Amino acid sequence: MKLGVIPGDGIGVEVTAEALRVLDAVLPGVEKVEYDLGAARYRRTGEILPDSVLHEIRGHDAILLGAIGDPSVPPGVLERDLLLRLRFELDHYVNLRPAKLYPGVRTPLSGDQEIDFVVYREGTEGPYTGNGGVLRRGTPHEVATEVSVNTAFGVERVVRAAFARAQSRERKRVTLVHKTNVLKHAGGLWQRTVDAVAAEFPDVTVDYHHVDAVMIHLVTHPERYDVIVTDNLFGDIVTDLAGAICGGIGLAASANVNPERLTPSMFEPVHGSAPDIAGQDKADPTAAVLSVALMLEHLGEQQAAQRIEAAVRADLASRDPERPGGTREIGERLARAVS
Amino acid sequence: MKLGVIPGDGIGVEVTAEALRVLDAVLPGVEKVEYDLGAARYRRTGEILPDSVLHEIRGHDAILLGAIGDPSVPPGVLERDLLLRLRFELDHYVNLRPAKLYPGVRTPLSGDQEIDFVVYREGTEGPYTGNGGVLRRGTPHEVATEVSVNTAFGVERVVRAAFARAQSRERKRVTLVHKTNVLKHAGGLWQRTVDAVAAEFPDVTVDYHHVDAVMIHLVTHPERYDVIVTDNLFGDIVTDLAGAICGGIGLAASANVNPERLTPSMFEPVHGSAPDIAGQDKADPTAAVLSVALMLEHLGEQQAAQRIEAAVRADLASRDPERPGGTREIGERLARAVS
Ligand SMILES: CC(C)[C@H](C(=O)O)[C@@H](O)C(=O)O
Ligand SMILES: CC(C)[C@H](C(=O)O)[C@@H](O)C(=O)O
Repeated sequence: MKLGVIPGDGIGVEVTAEALRVLDAVLPGVEKVEYDLGAARYRRTGEILPDSVLHEIRGHDAILLGAIGDPSVPPGVLERDLLLRLRFELDHYVNLRPAKLYPGVRTPLSGDQEIDFVVYREGTEGPYTGNGGVLRRGTPHEVATEVSVNTAFGVERVVRAAFARAQSRERKRVTLVHKTNVLKHAGGLWQRTVDAVAAEFPDVTVDYHHVDAVMIHLVTHPERYDVIVTDNLFGDIVTDLAGAICGGIGLAASANVNPERLTPSMFEPVHGSAPDIAGQDKADPTAAVLSVALMLEHLGEQQAAQRIEAAVRADLASRDPERPGGTREIGERLARAVS
Repeated sequence: MKLGVIPGDGIGVEVTAEALRVLDAVLPGVEKVEYDLGAARYRRTGEILPDSVLHEIRGHDAILLGAIGDPSVPPGVLERDLLLRLRFELDHYVNLRPAKLYPGVRTPLSGDQEIDFVVYREGTEGPYTGNGGVLRRGTPHEVATEVSVNTAFGVERVVRAAFARAQSRERKRVTLVHKTNVLKHAGGLWQRTVDAVAAEFPDVTVDYHHVDAVMIHLVTHPERYDVIVTDNLFGDIVTDLAGAICGGIGLAASANVNPERLTPSMFEPVHGSAPDIAGQDKADPTAAVLSVALMLEHLGEQQAAQRIEAAVRADLASRDPERPGGTREIGERLARAVS
C-alpha cells in the first residue's frame, strides 16, 4: 500500500502526524510519500500543485490530507487551486461525510438524540465548478455570476452510490436535500434522478427536504436522517452543521472517493487549518484519525478500520470534556489503543 | 393606512386571522383588502398572480402574507410565481429577519445563550433569479444550470442598509456571510462592496464568515452575531437555522422591505403553510403577530409595534412549553394584552 501524504498548513501538520502515528500502530509498514504542498511552498516558489506532482500522486493507493489555508496567502487561492483541484482532477465525485454522535461526546443540542447518518455530497460539479465571471469589475455596473453546473452523469453516479450505501444500512432511507422550489433547473434534474434510481432500489425509502428545512431538522430531530444525498454546496453547509451537532468538526472525518478506483481517493478531516491555534498542540487529531479509518475501510482493511473506530469510541467515552488532552497526547492514546 | 392581506394556504389562513385580530386590537381602523391568492384560486382558475391584482396591490401601504403552498399544486409553482414574484416585482431587496431568543422560550441548544441578531438577506437577485436552464432534458446527457446573478447595484443597497442598521444597534457589528473561497466571482463583489461601504461607517465593526462556518457558530456561539448581511440563498438557509435556535420558526417573523418605499413592503412569518397541521388550530400565530409588529415599525407606528413585542415577550415568558395553547387562544391572549 502506497500512501500520498499532504499535511498542508496550520494544524493540518499536527493532526496528520498523529493520524500517521495511529496508522503505523494499527497497520505497520504502509509506504508513505510526503508532499510539501500548501502555503509554505506557494510562498517559496509560487507553485500550488505542479502537474508533475499531481501525476505522481495519481500513482498512490490513497491520499491523506491534513488541512489547507494560511493567512499569508490570499483567501481562496489554495482552497481552489490545491484542495478543489485535487477533488476535481481525481474525480472524487463522492464526498462522504459520516455524522455520528459518539457516547460521552458533548453536543451543543439539549436533547439526547441518537445521531448516525452519512452525507453523500457531490464533489465534482454544482456551484463548485468556478463557472461564471465578472463584468465591469469595480464599477457601479458590475455584474458577477456563479453558474452551478449539474449533469445527469454527475448527479446519477452520486445518487446511485448513496442508494447502494442506504441498502447496506439498517434503516435504508435516502433523503435528497436541495432547494427544488427555487432552483428548478438543477432541482428538477436532482429530483428526477432520485426518482429514477429509487425505482431500482425498492427496499430503500426515499424522501426529500429543502435545505432550509434541514437546518431545523438537524437541531431538533437529527435522528431522522440515515443517508443524505445532496449537491456540492448544500453538502458543504449541511456537513458543517452535522459536524457541529456531533460534537464539533474536531471529530468530523471525510472521504473524497472515486468509487471505481480509477484514481486514489483522498481522506481529510472536515476542519480547516485553524491558523489561530496552529503549533500549540491544541488541535484535536480525532477527525484526522477517523479519516484514516475511512481510508482503511476504502482500501479493504476493514479490521484495522474497525479497531480505530473502536479506539476512538472508547477514548471519547472516557475523555474529560474540559481536558481532552493535547494533539500529541490524544494521538498517542489512540495509537496505544489500536496496537 | 391601507393594508393588502394575502392569507394564502394551509395554516397561513389561520395565523393571518390572529395577526389581524392583534392588529385591530392595537391599532383599530386599519383598512384591509383581502386577496384570495394561493392554491385554491390556482386550482379554480389557473391564475396565480394576475397583473391586475399585482397592480392593485401596489397601491397599498403594506402587505401582510400568511403562507403559500399546498400539496395539490406542483411544488415550487406558487412559491416562484406568487411569493417570489411579489418579492421581485415589488423590489423587496431587504429581506429582514430578526433572530431573538425571548426569555422562557425553549431552544434546542443546551447552553444559555443570549441570541439577538438580525439578518439582512438580499431579496431580489443571487441564485433566486430563475436564470439558468436545462439542456437535453431527461437524457443521459442532460445538463442543468442555475445562474446566481449579483450586481453592484443590488449588493451595495442591501449592504448599505445592513450597515445603517448596525449603526443604530448597541454592538454595531456587521458580518458578511458568503462562500468567497469557492464562489470567487460573486464572493469578490460582495467582499469588495462590504469593504467599500465599511469605509463610510467607521464606527461599525466588520467581519466575514464562510456560510459553512456560520453553521457551527450558530449552534455554539450565536451571541457573537449582531447584523448578518448575505445573499438570497445563504440568507434562506441561515435564517431557518436562526429561527430553529430561537425556539422554532413558529416564532420567526420577517419583512420584505423596499426601504425607499417605492412599493408596499410585505410582512410574513418565516414558516410555510404546513399542510399537515392546517385547519387544526395547532399553528402558533406568534410569528405572524410579530410580523405585524415589523410592519407597524416600518409604517412609523413605533408605539403599537412595541406594544405587540412586549405582549409577545410576556406571553412567551409565561407559556407552558408543553401547552402553549391553540392558534386562536394565543391570538386572543395577545389581542387582549395589546388593547
Ligand atoms: C475549504 C473549502 C474549499 C472546502 C469546501 O468548501 O469544500 C471545505 O469547506 C470543506 O468542506 O471541505
Ligand atoms: C418558500 C420559499 C420560496 C421561501 C424562500 O426560499 O425564500 C422560503 O423558504 C422563505 O425563506 O421565505
